[in-house]
Amino acid sequence: MAQITGINHLAIVVEDVQTALGFWRDALGLPLHKLERNDGEQVEIAFLPLSSGEIELIAPTTESSGVAKYLAKRGAGLHHVCLEVDNIAAMMDQLRGKGIELINDAPKVNELGVKYCFVHPKSANGVLVELYELAK
Amino acid sequence: MAQITGINHLAIVVEDVQTALGFWRDALGLPLHKLERNDGEQVEIAFLPLSSGEIELIAPTTESSGVAKYLAKRGAGLHHVCLEVDNIAAMMDQLRGKGIELINDAPKVNELGVKYCFVHPKSANGVLVELYELAK
Repeated sequence: MAQITGINHLAIVVEDVQTALGFWRDALGLPLHKLERNDGEQVEIAFLPLSSGEIELIAPTTESSGVAKYLAKRGAGLHHVCLEVDNIAAMMDQLRGKGIELINDAPKVNELGVKYCFVHPKSANGVLVELYELAK
Repeated sequence: MAQITGINHLAIVVEDVQTALGFWRDALGLPLHKLERNDGEQVEIAFLPLSSGEIELIAPTTESSGVAKYLAKRGAGLHHVCLEVDNIAAMMDQLRGKGIELINDAPKVNELGVKYCFVHPKSANGVLVELYELAK
């Protein structure tokens, strides 16, 4: 049976990364590990690692991006939680076997070799859950 | 300077704990550490620990509880994130010094000796942030 091994990150949608850093970095004191601009997703992301897990602040860079639409509809706030799993393909089979709806049919792979997928919020109490299998 | 040391828990508001366990415990495989009924807050809470940090599922036990009102207004979903801090009184001073609005004037203490307080979501990009200083 596939196992969840921890929280990888907690993603927060914000209007503007620099303004948001005023709370998360400057007031709360979290370290800013890196700032990344993703032109494909039309977002800017700030990564603030904790001893275990990470806070990610995500802001839209265009008015037509998915994140901009989310902000317009829901406002800033908690967006998704990403859990690490030892075997994502086995976990996806396990979830489908329990009737859980997944957003992706198969794992996607990011530029760091991380395999990932999303569980549909309607199967997870309104929570958008991302699953990560880290590159070996 | 007070330091954030990690994520203590991520709280998710759900309609019903037993139904929610169908995803978090039975499908995802997280262990159920304990179920607790808090008649003061009029909630039932399921605690599902990860290797670091914990998922808490919170459901109302009365229709007039704060959580029931939250559910009626916002629906189920991510409710708050709790971060551990080494010195909560120093962190509260530090936050106030940066103009951050706190919900509590002084730390509260729970039955386990944990000191806690909440940061107002309007100072934290719409996120309700709880701070915990664990009992020594």
